[in-house]
Amino acid sequence: MLPFKVHILGCGSALPTLRHNASAQVVEAHSNLFLVDCGEGTQREMRRCRIAMSRISHIFISHLHGDHCFGLPGLLTTLAMLGRRGEIHIYAFAELQQTFAPLLAQHLKGAELYPVFHNIRHEGFETIYENNSFFVKTLPLRHRVPCVGFVFQEKKPLPHIRREMIDFLQIPHYAINDIKQGVGWVADDGTFYPHERLVMPNHPPRKYVYMSDTLPCLEHIEVVKGVDLLYHEATFAEDRAVRAIETCHSTARQAAHFALQAGVKQLLIGHYSARYLDEAPLLDEARSVFLNTIAAQEGLVVEV
Amino acid sequence: MLPFKVHILGCGSALPTLRHNASAQVVEAHSNLFLVDCGEGTQREMRRCRIAMSRISHIFISHLHGDHCFGLPGLLTTLAMLGRRGEIHIYAFAELQQTFAPLLAQHLKGAELYPVFHNIRHEGFETIYENNSFFVKTLPLRHRVPCVGFVFQEKKPLPHIRREMIDFLQIPHYAINDIKQGVGWVADDGTFYPHERLVMPNHPPRKYVYMSDTLPCLEHIEVVKGVDLLYHEATFAEDRAVRAIETCHSTARQAAHFALQAGVKQLLIGHYSARYLDEAPLLDEARSVFLNTIAAQEGLVVEV
Repeated sequence: MLPFKVHILGCGSALPTLRHNASAQVVEAHSNLFLVDCGEGTQREMRRCRIAMSRISHIFISHLHGDHCFGLPGLLTTLAMLGRRGEIHIYAFAELQQTFAPLLAQHLKGAELYPVFHNIRHEGFETIYENNSFFVKTLPLRHRVPCVGFVFQEKKPLPHIRREMIDFLQIPHYAINDIKQGVGWVADDGTFYPHERLVMPNHPPRKYVYMSDTLPCLEHIEVVKGVDLLYHEATFAEDRAVRAIETCHSTARQAAHFALQAGVKQLLIGHYSARYLDEAPLLDEARSVFLNTIAAQEGLVVEV
Repeated sequence: MLPFKVHILGCGSALPTLRHNASAQVVEAHSNLFLVDCGEGTQREMRRCRIAMSRISHIFISHLHGDHCFGLPGLLTTLAMLGRRGEIHIYAFAELQQTFAPLLAQHLKGAELYPVFHNIRHEGFETIYENNSFFVKTLPLRHRVPCVGFVFQEKKPLPHIRREMIDFLQIPHYAINDIKQGVGWVADDGTFYPHERLVMPNHPPRKYVYMSDTLPCLEHIEVVKGVDLLYHEATFAEDRAVRAIETCHSTARQAAHFALQAGVKQLLIGHYSARYLDEAPLLDEARSVFLNTIAAQEGLVVEV
């Protein structure tokens, strides 16, 4: 199976702590490395996690709070210094371009690295990026400022070839790709072998959903239904449920309830408030509702 | 003696490494904490070094390369979140205000923290800040972009009172401050005791000079003469002397030669290139020219 993993670079929240970095993660999706959010210190954490910075060409920013975007200037100027050329695509609300443009223009002056801004909208579900093997879609969240989640959806993988049929029928190599795509085969004796007899189904397409920062969004249960992995913020525990509402965040219990109702396969919590010196209470709280929960930590790699 | 110390928060150079942070240091000057440069990650390193962020009210930025200023938005928004109010003074080239203003305006919206920009110039030596006990002056450096060093100069401290004279003459408490300031005393029998008989000289005023990033600046030898502590960048060792010239940096040997010629009391080197996995060769090279050299490290505190 081609790789589909989430690398956690930062899972803290707005106030800096020594335990956690500001929000950032890399979604390794087959041969792509998608960066999701880019808090201060992201470039250094990429070094620590041995993620090849130069392979990042698409960056998705959920919203414009500093702990989700202040690492951008450093990352882009470092890429330029390392000789990275060409376009780098940044998907964010229009305000990001407006506020970062003067800074980036000055610091990328003379470089051959060109940030291309794609403005995303808060309304509805939109496919903001697509390549041969993946879709990236937005999911409107409920935060103090416009904020979206991201859905990373694998396209249906091509079926596996039935090796014994190929050998038996002596089907030449050049025909394999057509067969994978859905074409049948006519043998030398004129017998037609439909596509279905020549292939076996591959794994179902995998799906990863990133939801941070947000109040619980029960309206998205259908969209998130059955996904392989859900990252949901769990800034507070239930004892701070009022504070969670005031600041438009979720509690660990709420994240777990959402995961349970949506029937996801695995829940990954993060975006911990600086007030928690240890995430065990958050993890315990979530697990009491949804057992298959894991707690994000810098350096953690989770298979989707 | 009132404290006068340098706290190293970051002594790496442009490319991020796991060994060093980008440039930043706090000059503790009596009761003031002056921040000098503010690379990405500075706010977090302040936490690690247990420096009370809220006490920073003056920030001095040497030049506009990202490794010296990209930590500003994060630091300022964190201060605002922590409820810090009022003005925070930033001394930098005018371009800094132009490029950071839109970002800061957006992220400090609604906060009661107001950055006040003081534009510094590259020419000449200027006193850009003064309070009761310190001057801060600029020193034009030779870098690829306009860049200044900073001189932190203690004002002449008030003399110590001669306790035995005060007791003998039964001088009342309210008169002590005037005496320290230079006034004499008339005893009950009419004898006049001049100021000099009532006090002992205090320590000579101390001076700290920060010079990063720069080619060697022999023209500043007179200004730097005999200072208590000099921070001089030593990005490269002599084997990269050509690279140092190309990038407008200094070698460790050049930093040490400058310190020797200026007769400083102690040299502190830093701003190490990412290519050095260990600073021992840089320190050895500097010490072979100027023995009283120490190598900056994150968390190091040096008395001026």
